[in-house]
Amino acid sequence: MGIKIGVLKEQSPHEHRVSIDPEVVKRLTKSGKKVFIENSAGSDANFFDVDYTAVGAEIVDRKTALTTTDIVVMIDMPDDETLAALKDGQVVIGLFNSLTIPAKIEMLAKKNVSVISMELLPRTISRAQTMDVLSSQSSVAGYKAALIASDLYPKYFPMMITAAGTVKPAKVLVLGTGVAGLQAIGTAKRLGAIVSGYDVRPASRGEVESLGATFLTSSVANGAGNGGYARQLTAEEQAAQQKELADFIAQNDIVITTAQVPGHKPPLLVTDDSVTNAKPGTIFVDLAASELGGNVAGSQPFKTITTEQHVTIVGAGNLASQVSNSASQLFAKNILAVLNYIIDEDTVQFDLTDDVLKDLVATHKGDIVNPRLRKALDLPDLPDPHTETEES
Amino acid sequence: MGIKIGVLKEQSPHEHRVSIDPEVVKRLTKSGKKVFIENSAGSDANFFDVDYTAVGAEIVDRKTALTTTDIVVMIDMPDDETLAALKDGQVVIGLFNSLTIPAKIEMLAKKNVSVISMELLPRTISRAQTMDVLSSQSSVAGYKAALIASDLYPKYFPMMITAAGTVKPAKVLVLGTGVAGLQAIGTAKRLGAIVSGYDVRPASRGEVESLGATFLTSSVANGAGNGGYARQLTAEEQAAQQKELADFIAQNDIVITTAQVPGHKPPLLVTDDSVTNAKPGTIFVDLAASELGGNVAGSQPFKTITTEQHVTIVGAGNLASQVSNSASQLFAKNILAVLNYIIDEDTVQFDLTDDVLKDLVATHKGDIVNPRLRKALDLPDLPDPHTETEES
Repeated sequence: MGIKIGVLKEQSPHEHRVSIDPEVVKRLTKSGKKVFIENSAGSDANFFDVDYTAVGAEIVDRKTALTTTDIVVMIDMPDDETLAALKDGQVVIGLFNSLTIPAKIEMLAKKNVSVISMELLPRTISRAQTMDVLSSQSSVAGYKAALIASDLYPKYFPMMITAAGTVKPAKVLVLGTGVAGLQAIGTAKRLGAIVSGYDVRPASRGEVESLGATFLTSSVANGAGNGGYARQLTAEEQAAQQKELADFIAQNDIVITTAQVPGHKPPLLVTDDSVTNAKPGTIFVDLAASELGGNVAGSQPFKTITTEQHVTIVGAGNLASQVSNSASQLFAKNILAVLNYIIDEDTVQFDLTDDVLKDLVATHKGDIVNPRLRKALDLPDLPDPHTETEES
Repeated sequence: MGIKIGVLKEQSPHEHRVSIDPEVVKRLTKSGKKVFIENSAGSDANFFDVDYTAVGAEIVDRKTALTTTDIVVMIDMPDDETLAALKDGQVVIGLFNSLTIPAKIEMLAKKNVSVISMELLPRTISRAQTMDVLSSQSSVAGYKAALIASDLYPKYFPMMITAAGTVKPAKVLVLGTGVAGLQAIGTAKRLGAIVSGYDVRPASRGEVESLGATFLTSSVANGAGNGGYARQLTAEEQAAQQKELADFIAQNDIVITTAQVPGHKPPLLVTDDSVTNAKPGTIFVDLAASELGGNVAGSQPFKTITTEQHVTIVGAGNLASQVSNSASQLFAKNILAVLNYIIDEDTVQFDLTDDVLKDLVATHKGDIVNPRLRKALDLPDLPDPHTETEES
């Protein structure tokens, strides 16, 4: 009796990824797990049902994938009908942004469903790196951001020397040089652009320069925060930063923004004034675009806007999903690392004294166990992490 | 009284280029020409009216650009209403594909309009290289073909080594390694793909390999023809070539086709069988797609088709126009070279004994003068090229 793993087809029209690819299925079946794939779950990512059955998975309907399995894997939080079908004792794994939907997480806890939400992973523990979905998907998003810019840009990215004359290379500025920003820098460099990367964390200089780009940082504030992330700047610091950035922006053809501060709405880096004063034809790609606002004034997720000054603002939404195959492949490898971490032979283990799991697990045994989620729900701290092993 | 040059706004919804950019206007006005730009002629290419007036052009309505000028410049052959407005003795310059519309050219000859059609340029004369619109625009199209493929492809182009594992690079095959093919190869290489280039002309090997790509050629036939172009293969040779190509195609993720034989419909390189036997997810970008058929079975210009076997066929149509700014910049430089060649101070010169002009000029003084056009219209050869100079 191996552990049974179900893989759901994603529901959002914007989601083309699948949480487990055939390569990972192969590894799971080889070690005795049974994998049930909802029909056509991977087809948007060019993983077809025949590819899954070829490596030992069974293609099933959604209900079977949901109700006959021990662990159900997906990317986004599914609809309420799906959640209602989950059974007492099941484990669900996905990228749920659980802190934004604490009520749903609470409901799953009450059903005694154990929830592992990948964004809760502690990112500074090195043995957790292979599980780091935020990192793998940000990297894909940064790559895609540069491609989108190159596709929209009505000029060559590289310098071109032709019989008729020379065409100048594109100038690309990347704001925020985390994983996504570095990948955007690398891709724009590959395409031959002149690239600079800006970050409030001075320590980013080395990574940016190693890609052959110019490093720009704030003369206003050192924005290095906890865990390698940027901290939130004060209002005065942010105003000074916006002013300083306006000059950098006006010198570039393409601006890719990737600044996120965990737990806060994205910082506004490009103000209305900066958009107005950008060169006509400037293209902004805002990876932080969200319903709450993004890094660029006026950006809207999944929308491309052109202003009267001929400036284009791409509000990126789920760029990783647009490179669906590679993004799924990496997502699946991250999930495999989690599965290997919590499955011991035919048993699912939740050792909540473990540094990784005590953050990564959102709910277990009817309780919300992640400290940040408990705080978000105004619940008291749990007494002591309880070690336990349960049979699946 | 300087020569007056009018620049028309293009009429096709697929045409975003403009025939003369502000940089070339600057050079023309500096040497005493007067340039009249139809309003918003360059706006699709990010050249705005203010950019033109800043370098001395006058923004005018279409009628003024057409009727008050000595030379009218455009890209595509305009509609009949536009042609009707042209006056006796005017010169028009564009990329008219005149051999496909001999009746229109004949009509312009009867109006005593002198037509210079850029595709008639003799491409093997080195002093004509700066006028070579087909070359400059093919280069842009090849660049764009690789970008389109990378944007549609749901995987990374480059190899990626991440904490979660390695992603394999894309395999790109380029069929036809002329100017467009070489630029597609170069761009796919920049993006990190594994690239091979196929051509029936063995002499292409050096150029392909110098870009870091693998050269593939036909074991069936040496297809080198006149003037560096490929010749048309016999039916048997073509069938053998298609069979050989099917194997190459099945080993790749992306196939960009660029094969043209001057004066013939594009050769079919990718048969229905090759499409069916391609790997699911394969992307074809057919730069030769036309109403007469292209290099890929089933391709249609300006259309993207996905087959039941999950193969995508992009029928490219006017890709250069999609990189409107750079393409216009190069087009304008080519046109400037022609203008410099035919304008001597305040005089337009048509020396039809000149090796370049005797081909490049389609009509002059009421006659069709280009030999290939005369042949297409079943006209007898002209007696002797007449040297002449006329006052504008």
